[in-house]
Amino acid sequence: MSRREPLGVAVIGTGRMGADHVRRIDRVVSGARVTAVVDLDARRAEAAAAGIDGCGVYTDPAAAMAAADVDAVLIASSGPAHEAALLSAFERDLPVLCEKPLTPDAASALRVMDAEAALGHRRVQVGFMRRYDAEYVRLKALLETGELGRPLMLHNRHRNVASAPFFTSGMLITDSVAHEVDATRWLLGHEIAAVTVLRPAPSAGAPDGLLDPQFVVLETNGGALSDVEIFVNCGFGYQVQAEVVCERGTARIGDGHALVTNVGGRWGGTIAQDWTERFAQAYDDEVQAWVDATRRGEVAGPSTWDGYAAAAVCEAGVRALDTGGRVEVDLVEQPELYK
Amino acid sequence: MSRREPLGVAVIGTGRMGADHVRRIDRVVSGARVTAVVDLDARRAEAAAAGIDGCGVYTDPAAAMAAADVDAVLIASSGPAHEAALLSAFERDLPVLCEKPLTPDAASALRVMDAEAALGHRRVQVGFMRRYDAEYVRLKALLETGELGRPLMLHNRHRNVASAPFFTSGMLITDSVAHEVDATRWLLGHEIAAVTVLRPAPSAGAPDGLLDPQFVVLETNGGALSDVEIFVNCGFGYQVQAEVVCERGTARIGDGHALVTNVGGRWGGTIAQDWTERFAQAYDDEVQAWVDATRRGEVAGPSTWDGYAAAAVCEAGVRALDTGGRVEVDLVEQPELYK
Amino acid sequence: MSRREPLGVAVIGTGRMGADHVRRIDRVVSGARVTAVVDLDARRAEAAAAGIDGCGVYTDPAAAMAAADVDAVLIASSGPAHEAALLSAFERDLPVLCEKPLTPDAASALRVMDAEAALGHRRVQVGFMRRYDAEYVRLKALLETGELGRPLMLHNRHRNVASAPFFTSGMLITDSVAHEVDATRWLLGHEIAAVTVLRPAPSAGAPDGLLDPQFVVLETNGGALSDVEIFVNCGFGYQVQAEVVCERGTARIGDGHALVTNVGGRWGGTIAQDWTERFAQAYDDEVQAWVDATRRGEVAGPSTWDGYAAAAVCEAGVRALDTGGRVEVDLVEQPELYK
Amino acid sequence: MSRREPLGVAVIGTGRMGADHVRRIDRVVSGARVTAVVDLDARRAEAAAAGIDGCGVYTDPAAAMAAADVDAVLIASSGPAHEAALLSAFERDLPVLCEKPLTPDAASALRVMDAEAALGHRRVQVGFMRRYDAEYVRLKALLETGELGRPLMLHNRHRNVASAPFFTSGMLITDSVAHEVDATRWLLGHEIAAVTVLRPAPSAGAPDGLLDPQFVVLETNGGALSDVEIFVNCGFGYQVQAEVVCERGTARIGDGHALVTNVGGRWGGTIAQDWTERFAQAYDDEVQAWVDATRRGEVAGPSTWDGYAAAAVCEAGVRALDTGGRVEVDLVEQPELYK
Repeated sequence: MSRREPLGVAVIGTGRMGADHVRRIDRVVSGARVTAVVDLDARRAEAAAAGIDGCGVYTDPAAAMAAADVDAVLIASSGPAHEAALLSAFERDLPVLCEKPLTPDAASALRVMDAEAALGHRRVQVGFMRRYDAEYVRLKALLETGELGRPLMLHNRHRNVASAPFFTSGMLITDSVAHEVDATRWLLGHEIAAVTVLRPAPSAGAPDGLLDPQFVVLETNGGALSDVEIFVNCGFGYQVQAEVVCERGTARIGDGHALVTNVGGRWGGTIAQDWTERFAQAYDDEVQAWVDATRRGEVAGPSTWDGYAAAAVCEAGVRALDTGGRVEVDLVEQPELYK
Repeated sequence: MSRREPLGVAVIGTGRMGADHVRRIDRVVSGARVTAVVDLDARRAEAAAAGIDGCGVYTDPAAAMAAADVDAVLIASSGPAHEAALLSAFERDLPVLCEKPLTPDAASALRVMDAEAALGHRRVQVGFMRRYDAEYVRLKALLETGELGRPLMLHNRHRNVASAPFFTSGMLITDSVAHEVDATRWLLGHEIAAVTVLRPAPSAGAPDGLLDPQFVVLETNGGALSDVEIFVNCGFGYQVQAEVVCERGTARIGDGHALVTNVGGRWGGTIAQDWTERFAQAYDDEVQAWVDATRRGEVAGPSTWDGYAAAAVCEAGVRALDTGGRVEVDLVEQPELYK
Repeated sequence: MSRREPLGVAVIGTGRMGADHVRRIDRVVSGARVTAVVDLDARRAEAAAAGIDGCGVYTDPAAAMAAADVDAVLIASSGPAHEAALLSAFERDLPVLCEKPLTPDAASALRVMDAEAALGHRRVQVGFMRRYDAEYVRLKALLETGELGRPLMLHNRHRNVASAPFFTSGMLITDSVAHEVDATRWLLGHEIAAVTVLRPAPSAGAPDGLLDPQFVVLETNGGALSDVEIFVNCGFGYQVQAEVVCERGTARIGDGHALVTNVGGRWGGTIAQDWTERFAQAYDDEVQAWVDATRRGEVAGPSTWDGYAAAAVCEAGVRALDTGGRVEVDLVEQPELYK
Repeated sequence: MSRREPLGVAVIGTGRMGADHVRRIDRVVSGARVTAVVDLDARRAEAAAAGIDGCGVYTDPAAAMAAADVDAVLIASSGPAHEAALLSAFERDLPVLCEKPLTPDAASALRVMDAEAALGHRRVQVGFMRRYDAEYVRLKALLETGELGRPLMLHNRHRNVASAPFFTSGMLITDSVAHEVDATRWLLGHEIAAVTVLRPAPSAGAPDGLLDPQFVVLETNGGALSDVEIFVNCGFGYQVQAEVVCERGTARIGDGHALVTNVGGRWGGTIAQDWTERFAQAYDDEVQAWVDATRRGEVAGPSTWDGYAAAAVCEAGVRALDTGGRVEVDLVEQPELYK
């Protein structure tokens, strides 16, 4: 049975991503309100809650989840904090939207999956927001018509203007390529069976010691290839592009040209500078979808299984990066709950 | 002082556009809820209200506006019904989002403007939703930087797949070109001083007797030209494109390519088939902007003056269509309230 | 009967265009050689002939045409000199490729046409080189399939970086729009029946007193409209674009994007800066087509009639520019020779 | 010293490619004529020579080269016949334009290179025609400005509608990817150090037993990667695209859109169906460049060294295809003649 009252959401973590989700639920998303914010840094939490009527401020996720006006949990804290927050939510059987990564590695993702399976029903939607991006959605819909035939290859480009100071070579895999890992699985409907990471000579624009760019080749259990250029210091803009090559044709997204100018000997347009611009609509739709499903008493969207599979592939990817060779991906059997 | 309770909205008119606004306020827009729907056809109103908690159903706009839980009015009835509904709202000093056209002709628009001016503050936002379309917004922002110099010409294309059976030759001006009339005024910041309508031989795809396509030339009081191809039976899709030609460059919108395919000897993408697809985001943002402003106690967006100016230009346009010549546009002096 | 020897060509006029044609015949075009160059300025003619074996240098066109090794004439002198050169060529029955305009006005064009008609066969190909441009050729071919239905409107953009110091407001019509006059006639297969010239406030980038840009509307005897933006000081590049709007679809040329870059927050490409870059292939193909036809003993391509019609339309256009009104075009009956 | 007489060319091989070159030299290229055609199949040679004044017909390349009116040789026979024809040309010190591949394997390419080196001067231009394609030329020119920084990666797409019946899995490397091998070397100025060939599940559109598509990764001695999608039964068109990713930006070719249509719910354009359409201009320019250089007594363009390097890389590629692993490329030291 669906409910008509707005959903009360506790947002855990009020960094850049968490604060953006607070704003989104407060001002964009229909049918939900922020009833609690949680951050180890109490002042940051207070700042996020400012101006929101009746929004509680907490430093402990479990305490927030115990509040009477908290119906659901959005986890946007750092990756290592996810497991504990998820397990707390499971204790109260609360629905969760958990930012990616589900957890930082395959072993902890497995523990979360086992705990959810023990509940006997899905409670987690993982924040793979590309599944809500209008262009990806159109690409997926086109593939499902079968018009282009079976997918054979997927070419991905993922470019950021510049990386944060703390970014490591492995994070190009776990933080960035993780999106293409999920997009590959979701678009093709295959699991990833092996990973190879090629390392061109680093760009002069990359910080010392960072292996940037990298070129990742994912092989799927359906016989398809998915290659990913990841380049986090490209300098010119934020670009996410994908081309699926099928048996009878190809389809490409990410070139969207809204405003084209002619000036001074050049035609063209501007390139988004970060994900808040490029994927604003996807984040809005993602959270709205979660709010609506929750109010209907359902869980939909990317599951714990999807989060685990991404963690397992990224773990293999980091090993491929370190060894310079091809690393096979080993997944546990998929639980019934996620089939 | 801003309010935190959701805004209670009465939606007047539950045809295609009104029903879409009911859905939008109920499910998309944050901070508002539908508390009343009004339609002469009570069964259509009931259908629109179905499933919305506490939503009243009315056949008389004034009765709906008298309800305690109605804080604001959205008018989406047919054009001739707008004047009475607007005047009723003014009696209760309720904020209004009025679908375009403000009213069907310049004389009635003037009466509405006088009534609003008598209130001493703005109450009306007119539904010129292109001002909320992401591409138009970017185009306007670019013009305001001055980077391209002064605008000299604006080339517009406005194409529909097919026209409704009741569409007349004059409605190509008053119903369709009305959007370009407002877009020209808004983008260039000029008033329109004269209109010429050229009539190519009608397309075989147009219903008998309909002068379709037409080619409209608007001359502005700033010395700029704005030409509009209006073609409401183009057969292939819904396209709205605009190119501003400035002293140092041009800028074009409306070619946006989200998904490009290669298949069977052709590259390219799909064309939207109607405005619900092309302008979904603009409608959402328009209504959200109105809800937010209303909750802050403000009125923003296109004003009654803008609605009046469009009515006056379209009236001149229909005369230009009928006479085959150039017709000057005569505007009343702009009231202080709208400056 | 076709000949195997290279065609000996006299090039009359060795300014920018003539010198380029000398180079083209000498180095690009197969089956022809330059056997004479003619210029009132003997030193300029000598410079053009330098390095070409056996190329005569003349100051008098008629003298060049009398030379034994001259089989054909390419006229690239200034417009007012064309009539005399054409009549000289007719006296010797030599095939001519005459740069546009055929002659500067309709009356002189008529005299040339009468003289050619008196020969009883076509001798003149007029230099409307857009008919040889690969993109225009594809557009024409598409229209001829009938796939898009009957053409209703043609939207043209014609932009130059900057105009030469001697350029007058009338020359925007006679020198620039002349190309769209012919392109409209050729693409649509209609004659032009009336011309209107609209004059936006001139760009700050235009020289004092030059009415630039202009917006020209051509009405055809087939009920179609062709509008032309002519802007000869646009500052940003040389652009020639055309979109034909037909009953079932539209087709556009002139956006060709060969090289797309992503750099510094912008995607896009370069814009050609003049016609030597944009239409190099068209000029090559035009001259080659003429050489080949001449060697087969035939005359093909744009005829004297086409040159006359363009002259008559441009004359009407200049009057429309001067009077600010609509001017009808009055053509003589088309001689049998050109049907 | 340059010569003014047309260059007499013997064309060896009159299959599809050879016959096209005969036509090109006879009708398109300036400054050359076909004085001999050679084919083992005398009737095919006669057909190719038909209508060309004074063109000899031969079945033996050496005999053709001995003719007094043969100044230069164009080799377009099958790959295994190249070595003998090249050595015959060297005996008479004739300049040669040799279609790619120079020879079918690295060992025979080395023998040719040694023979040319023994002459003490270059005589061979290899038919890597992409170096003459306008888009590749612009891409190379852009890279040479240094504006985008050092190249890091090159992404290539090479798609054919359908493969010929005799095409083998190895020929995807030696016949098709050979072009990208040369383009990578030429664009980046690196030699190729290692090759990996990945094999997605073959397309249902590929003939039984053909491994199509393949995904080839070339590693260069400059630390760059070049990946190649080769798909010779893509069904939809002939596409050759390349994007260079540099330190400060990327540049892409191969999307060129000459004619864009809107019809029936789709926008877009046609895709070329084979190389004769896509690369016509490149072939013309290639042959013209060779004719001009030859008449100046020079040899320019891709050298025997370039042909050898491509052969060596392709050989490694075929081994990589067979073994499923990474194969290093071993080149002899580059002779002085080619530096």
